[in-house]
Amino acid sequence: MTENSPAAPPCSPAQPYSAPAVLDPHRARYAARTAGMTASEIRALFSVASRPEVVSLAGGMPNLAALPLQSLAEQTARIIEEDGLTALQYASAHGSPLLREQICDVTALEGIAAHPDDVVVTVGSQMGLDLVTRLFCDPGDVVVAEGPSYVGALGSFTAYQARVVHVAMDGHGLVPEALRAALRQAADAGQRVKLLYTIPNFHNPAGVTLAVGRRAEILEICRAYDVLVVEDNPYGLLGFDGQTYPALRSLDPDNVVYLGSFSKTFASGLRVGWVLAPPGVREKLVLATESATLCPPTLNQAIVSRYLATHDWQSRIESFRENYRERRDAMLSALERYLPQGCTWTTPDGGFYVWVTVPEGVDTKAMLPRAVAAQVAYASGTGFHTDGSGGRQMRLSFCYPEPDRIREGVRRLAGVLEAELAAGRDAGGNAGRALAGVGAHRARARCAPAPEVA
Amino acid sequence: MTENSPAAPPCSPAQPYSAPAVLDPHRARYAARTAGMTASEIRALFSVASRPEVVSLAGGMPNLAALPLQSLAEQTARIIEEDGLTALQYASAHGSPLLREQICDVTALEGIAAHPDDVVVTVGSQMGLDLVTRLFCDPGDVVVAEGPSYVGALGSFTAYQARVVHVAMDGHGLVPEALRAALRQAADAGQRVKLLYTIPNFHNPAGVTLAVGRRAEILEICRAYDVLVVEDNPYGLLGFDGQTYPALRSLDPDNVVYLGSFSKTFASGLRVGWVLAPPGVREKLVLATESATLCPPTLNQAIVSRYLATHDWQSRIESFRENYRERRDAMLSALERYLPQGCTWTTPDGGFYVWVTVPEGVDTKAMLPRAVAAQVAYASGTGFHTDGSGGRQMRLSFCYPEPDRIREGVRRLAGVLEAELAAGRDAGGNAGRALAGVGAHRARARCAPAPEVA
Repeated sequence: MTENSPAAPPCSPAQPYSAPAVLDPHRARYAARTAGMTASEIRALFSVASRPEVVSLAGGMPNLAALPLQSLAEQTARIIEEDGLTALQYASAHGSPLLREQICDVTALEGIAAHPDDVVVTVGSQMGLDLVTRLFCDPGDVVVAEGPSYVGALGSFTAYQARVVHVAMDGHGLVPEALRAALRQAADAGQRVKLLYTIPNFHNPAGVTLAVGRRAEILEICRAYDVLVVEDNPYGLLGFDGQTYPALRSLDPDNVVYLGSFSKTFASGLRVGWVLAPPGVREKLVLATESATLCPPTLNQAIVSRYLATHDWQSRIESFRENYRERRDAMLSALERYLPQGCTWTTPDGGFYVWVTVPEGVDTKAMLPRAVAAQVAYASGTGFHTDGSGGRQMRLSFCYPEPDRIREGVRRLAGVLEAELAAGRDAGGNAGRALAGVGAHRARARCAPAPEVA
Repeated sequence: MTENSPAAPPCSPAQPYSAPAVLDPHRARYAARTAGMTASEIRALFSVASRPEVVSLAGGMPNLAALPLQSLAEQTARIIEEDGLTALQYASAHGSPLLREQICDVTALEGIAAHPDDVVVTVGSQMGLDLVTRLFCDPGDVVVAEGPSYVGALGSFTAYQARVVHVAMDGHGLVPEALRAALRQAADAGQRVKLLYTIPNFHNPAGVTLAVGRRAEILEICRAYDVLVVEDNPYGLLGFDGQTYPALRSLDPDNVVYLGSFSKTFASGLRVGWVLAPPGVREKLVLATESATLCPPTLNQAIVSRYLATHDWQSRIESFRENYRERRDAMLSALERYLPQGCTWTTPDGGFYVWVTVPEGVDTKAMLPRAVAAQVAYASGTGFHTDGSGGRQMRLSFCYPEPDRIREGVRRLAGVLEAELAAGRDAGGNAGRALAGVGAHRARARCAPAPEVA
């Protein structure tokens, strides 16, 4: 007993707080899987990057400005008034039957013929990712993922002690030959590859899209090596020309688990996503949901359901798209204008991200504190790999800031890069020479003078 | 490739659905941990028990009738109107700072002096349970839990391949000597006991409360055996006389992880709970939350926060309590009136549940289909154990149905039990003789004639 305080006063923010001890007294008690649990670089960044004077090109927050708040407020009020005893009560772990039907209408836009029974509603698609990993990965099992890959997925794989093998992409997404070689090598080494985790459309962080002509081949390779495909598709409806691509799930329903989300097409803070899975997997997912959260939040499902039923949600997605296209254009023209020679970047035709490769000799992870000092933040490429690579890459997000802020952020970033390259030259390094990088499409000539942003 | 349907029509509920194949083609791919994932008996029950003609004494749904729906609707609308771009956006995995402060005010009612930094908001306390198990339990580690214990906790322990060792309770809760013996035995056997999982107040399913005089002793035993205590306390403010008990966490903050929930004191469908943990554990919980769901739903936290800030929530809990006390009284008097001789049951002074022990020779699991045929449902005791025991027990929930329905349900149950005992006597069995059971307080004389319920 260290304390007995039955009549302790309520705490208040003014109450002094003793910082955590350097040595956690519970450290010998943790499970082995916690060894890989460390704060992601991106998370560590959020606290500094959220200072208003910093232009954050680091986060992946959707821009919600186009949401019809007034009408959402009224509809949500009506749900609580008219159906609150249901909307505020526990419900099925499987998810609301009506919402699961509506989700099938959404996925039909990408060519998927699904049955509502095979949809499991999740607390964001992150939960789908976590539970799919829970179902399939024993410690030591291999997950093949693009290099770079989504940091939240890598976190889940690590949390279940899976090993990640990265496979190369080019400007057309995952390279089939590289996938085949990786699977052959794993098989030869006696490794058990359980999943291919892939983001085929408007990749996070690479900003590229898997060519339609590669899709069947990739599915065939996975079939041949007995690997289940996990298709993560949060950005699929955010193609800047309104284009969509056939979902992998539409091409091989029995060997693809599809992860979907309303975070980018409606509202991230509601945390409503889904998994579309073959029947046996879906049944296990429902059981896993019960262990994880009993059920997804009921009110949130009702809000999404009402929104889909009463709003022209496809037009709304169109305004999201236009908004992101404008920002993508602002970023690409600023990159073209400001970035030093030798930098290359991808040209996304949808989604949130540009993937930049910097000249040899620049270390994007080491440079980050200097960028933040210059009031611009990005996500260094190392966070998107589990093998230490990505040191010459960075992810720039154009989803959230206003176009002027994006331009100013890129201008600041260019200044930091110039300084970094100059320091490298001074030190006799070899910065500024090479061109390299996955999916790098273009390089530019010289850095223009820097205007001030109002 | 089995199908290529880029222009597939949206599905509809009328669309025929082929049932899952008997053999799941993915069965060889699952992780070892899925072996223990099976539908709980209680879940299997929900579908039949939810038919309107069945009186369900099986579920644990809180009765939300006392919620001020009109005012909740208005306040929620205001949150979305005035602060929607924040409330519908991603937020911190740690949880809303304001809500974490308010949670400290709530836990202060049970003697806990907590700092908001040590509170982690979760998607219901089930998620807290899941993540705490994730942090501490390697496969084969032992979790000590009361016998019987909460079915959702047993599900989480099983999902992480922990072994559950049940420890006996009596009418005053967990028996310290039994705990000490179990820990000694585990130590002698070289087992690694990681957690004591306990529900000290108004136990689910046993309906008993851990005597205040036992609390320090139980904490000392856990300290002596280097076992972390997980205190699950969803019902602590639902004592029928307004009484509260000192939380274990208040007596030993450094060795207790406390799980709290707004599901029983506000609204279960919002899925807002919390973990209060020592700093090292809390930091890992935040990381685990990021893997699990990125962050808890933002809007839901804002709704709870606004409710706590603007409503007299303590008076509201008082109406919940009165409602449950009335139902508890209805159940106890019906048990007294109807149940056959030889049945015993606990007398809860808070919470949702009565734990009934039936005479020897009756198997509550085998009897369940016959009870459902007689239009009453309960949860058989075996679901609350991992060791097969509980066959002579059942959990009766009084939280949700109206008092008249409770009485009618118990009357029907009594009829089924009488028939069961008569069949046992006819078969020369020894039903109807013994008195037994954990926490059993009283037995009654004879079954009164059965009135009809309007």
